[in-house]
Amino acid sequence: MTCIDLNCDMGESFGAWSMGDDAGVMPWITSANIACGFHAGDFSTMQQTVLLAKRHGVAIGAHVSLPDLQGFGRRVMKVSANDAHALTLYQIGALAGFARAAGLRVAHVKPHGALYNMAAKDAALADAIARAVHDFDATLILVGLANSELPKAGVALGLAVAHEAFADRSYEADGSLTLRGTHGAVIEDAAAAVAQAVKIATQGNVDIRSGGTLALRADTICVHGDRADAARFAQALHDGLKAAGISIANSARA
Amino acid sequence: MTCIDLNCDMGESFGAWSMGDDAGVMPWITSANIACGFHAGDFSTMQQTVLLAKRHGVAIGAHVSLPDLQGFGRRVMKVSANDAHALTLYQIGALAGFARAAGLRVAHVKPHGALYNMAAKDAALADAIARAVHDFDATLILVGLANSELPKAGVALGLAVAHEAFADRSYEADGSLTLRGTHGAVIEDAAAAVAQAVKIATQGNVDIRSGGTLALRADTICVHGDRADAARFAQALHDGLKAAGISIANSARA
Amino acid sequence: MTCIDLNCDMGESFGAWSMGDDAGVMPWITSANIACGFHAGDFSTMQQTVLLAKRHGVAIGAHVSLPDLQGFGRRVMKVSANDAHALTLYQIGALAGFARAAGLRVAHVKPHGALYNMAAKDAALADAIARAVHDFDATLILVGLANSELPKAGVALGLAVAHEAFADRSYEADGSLTLRGTHGAVIEDAAAAVAQAVKIATQGNVDIRSGGTLALRADTICVHGDRADAARFAQALHDGLKAAGISIANSARA
Amino acid sequence: MTCIDLNCDMGESFGAWSMGDDAGVMPWITSANIACGFHAGDFSTMQQTVLLAKRHGVAIGAHVSLPDLQGFGRRVMKVSANDAHALTLYQIGALAGFARAAGLRVAHVKPHGALYNMAAKDAALADAIARAVHDFDATLILVGLANSELPKAGVALGLAVAHEAFADRSYEADGSLTLRGTHGAVIEDAAAAVAQAVKIATQGNVDIRSGGTLALRADTICVHGDRADAARFAQALHDGLKAAGISIANSARA
Repeated sequence: MTCIDLNCDMGESFGAWSMGDDAGVMPWITSANIACGFHAGDFSTMQQTVLLAKRHGVAIGAHVSLPDLQGFGRRVMKVSANDAHALTLYQIGALAGFARAAGLRVAHVKPHGALYNMAAKDAALADAIARAVHDFDATLILVGLANSELPKAGVALGLAVAHEAFADRSYEADGSLTLRGTHGAVIEDAAAAVAQAVKIATQGNVDIRSGGTLALRADTICVHGDRADAARFAQALHDGLKAAGISIANSARA
Repeated sequence: MTCIDLNCDMGESFGAWSMGDDAGVMPWITSANIACGFHAGDFSTMQQTVLLAKRHGVAIGAHVSLPDLQGFGRRVMKVSANDAHALTLYQIGALAGFARAAGLRVAHVKPHGALYNMAAKDAALADAIARAVHDFDATLILVGLANSELPKAGVALGLAVAHEAFADRSYEADGSLTLRGTHGAVIEDAAAAVAQAVKIATQGNVDIRSGGTLALRADTICVHGDRADAARFAQALHDGLKAAGISIANSARA
Repeated sequence: MTCIDLNCDMGESFGAWSMGDDAGVMPWITSANIACGFHAGDFSTMQQTVLLAKRHGVAIGAHVSLPDLQGFGRRVMKVSANDAHALTLYQIGALAGFARAAGLRVAHVKPHGALYNMAAKDAALADAIARAVHDFDATLILVGLANSELPKAGVALGLAVAHEAFADRSYEADGSLTLRGTHGAVIEDAAAAVAQAVKIATQGNVDIRSGGTLALRADTICVHGDRADAARFAQALHDGLKAAGISIANSARA
Repeated sequence: MTCIDLNCDMGESFGAWSMGDDAGVMPWITSANIACGFHAGDFSTMQQTVLLAKRHGVAIGAHVSLPDLQGFGRRVMKVSANDAHALTLYQIGALAGFARAAGLRVAHVKPHGALYNMAAKDAALADAIARAVHDFDATLILVGLANSELPKAGVALGLAVAHEAFADRSYEADGSLTLRGTHGAVIEDAAAAVAQAVKIATQGNVDIRSGGTLALRADTICVHGDRADAARFAQALHDGLKAAGISIANSARA
């Protein structure tokens, strides 16, 4: 039976500002990527998010980011490999503090925003992040864009990796996501997005924006928590995958 | 044989700014309190400081602070007990990330600046910090002002605690430190400061600014790293204590 | 004819996080207190908020805060008078940059959150803030809690001051606001809040939580933008005051 | 008589951390570029630096930066033209607050670090910065790398511009500075650096690292305040230029 993980970015509130519908989405996912204070998520938010994940039996991961709160970690920023290594360790550690206090462990690490996109293409950066994960705990799962430099760097170090695909993002011929801002980059229609996820999970391929399909074997599918209908969409994705005979559970490649 | 720990605040550089003479002081101490990014110390500084401590076999601790970089954690700031608990966990965790990557463990936790002073007097705040330490790892040592609320809160939870005394700070009759800014608050003369430390370690008491002495059983003595002569002072303290027959080693009360 | 100013805290979004319904509230007010980046409001938000105020002919003011983004400026923080003076100047200046580029000028200054409450009671802090306003532009209006230390400090320097009252906050016998968290501190019922504002504007007094009334001559009434029904409430307040024969316009005492 | 401006980056301390020898350098320069809180310089530092410049009759300018305190504004960061416009206005405004309180005015604007280098090459970014300067005050001087996109953008808007050259940095054939890290990028020898400045000021050209010379008409020469010998170097530069018959004064091209 085919198995896939459903992950969602969580804990993206900060201080007096709230973001996302974590309580509504949590019941439908298997992995929560928790912001660690660099792009979002202060210490109180992190603590509450870890406890929310615990109540739902959802695996927690560090959603590590460039240090850019005002830009929500979405601005490209040139950091050295040494800095990428150190900022990854810092953020995993910070989350692990809350995990440990809650009797849990950090299960995975996924870079966020600009760091995610940079690590998909820059082998040296990908290696720095993967080494930080490995140095912290060689049994953690490294999550990155399917078929990109990041999972490749993880495999090179012997880490379990999860290739990530997106239900509601359009793909280009080279396997990259259509840039936000381009027409059709985000698949707003929930049914179409669920269909894309089911196709990825069952057939191992995805439609390309310019026509044709692309082979895409994914271990985890990202549920965007910033959709207006995030909780309903998460449920639709969950139900659609199950209806297609897919088991929803943590999944990675050794 | 009497035994005392020598601790120093370390890793207080930030980005392009450097502070302290960590390399010069590290050979003479047994415990390094490492800034965790809230009052000082970015991720790169933390990583380098952990490695420096490792080379010298010095125990590392989280120097946890209020979130106040511009004020260096020295401004009183009203935080809830929940926030104090969460910010302590965050900072211990972040340091533990670097410790783990270096094959070390965090050995102790000491609040910094305003948080240190507040936790010496405010039982609820002291309890919140002590609980965070306990929730992270019940074998950690909690360091606080000797005979204050913080070690009391640690003992109540079954933590090992280290009562801290100061070589180069003047004491008031109630056991508090003379406020900075008051004449004589800082003992600038190195020999006098060493003598005070030796008296604390050997006789278990300390002179009071207004005259007389105060019983003061300390487990650890703080070496101020922000003195102009920090490295020489650390060595003088180290040598002076040894010459008085005191063994210098990690020390705490179960 | 009696005249009163309606003010609202504006521009409290930050980066990816939004807060408040500025576009909905702006048509009904005469003074916008714009966050200056210390508790909320980044440079882009400030620029957009200034332009929004300009389109509606609303006077702009600097909503100056303690440097505490995570705490939204609501945490008490001990700052020196020198620091209070400098942080006030910095924030007024930053807002004035956008005002000047838009062909406007900053019309008033109002401290935010903890700084507002501290400046209502601490004469030295109130003086430091008032001096900063005066040093920047002696024709600015200083807004503070009615009958508190802040307007008093402004008057002492010859500044025009606006005594502020609250439509939807309960009052204590000493003229202070009932602390948030106390039952009845916030008057949720819009009609009751409008009635309180009308009473203040027409009769110059307000009901006290414990019974009786308090003389309260206000120049400006605060519309809370963080109510769920902020825009409707602002309109109700605006319409209610006009229906009572009150003119709504910028108002201060020389 | 040839005239040149000497400028230096100032006010780069932050909170408890100090940087540079502002008091030692100030007597020898004619323009101080003051950090505005984004890469360095908090509100207190800014205020003190403005007053120091005033005592020496030195013109003050806003040293505007990307929002990156930990990276000291030296990390390349992708910002939109709108953001560049807004962050420039914010920082000029903040400095102008202190200037106004001191009875001074902001005389010039110079981008810092990565923003300086990006604005030298990216015409859209240069235009955004120049527009912010123009929107604030069309009589301000815009300072940028000689012959680069930034002064070009200023000229296009009718701003006075100052082409900047460096005494102690090596030049490439295209007029760019040799990248830091490359051998010979920084001219450590003070006499050689003074000689380069004199050559630029008197002959209008500079030696190229790979051999040959480059035409370089500069209006202002940068004194690096982060040299170990900053004050002596500033004096040597000042004296060397005067000895060569150059007048040292504010200088820009209309």
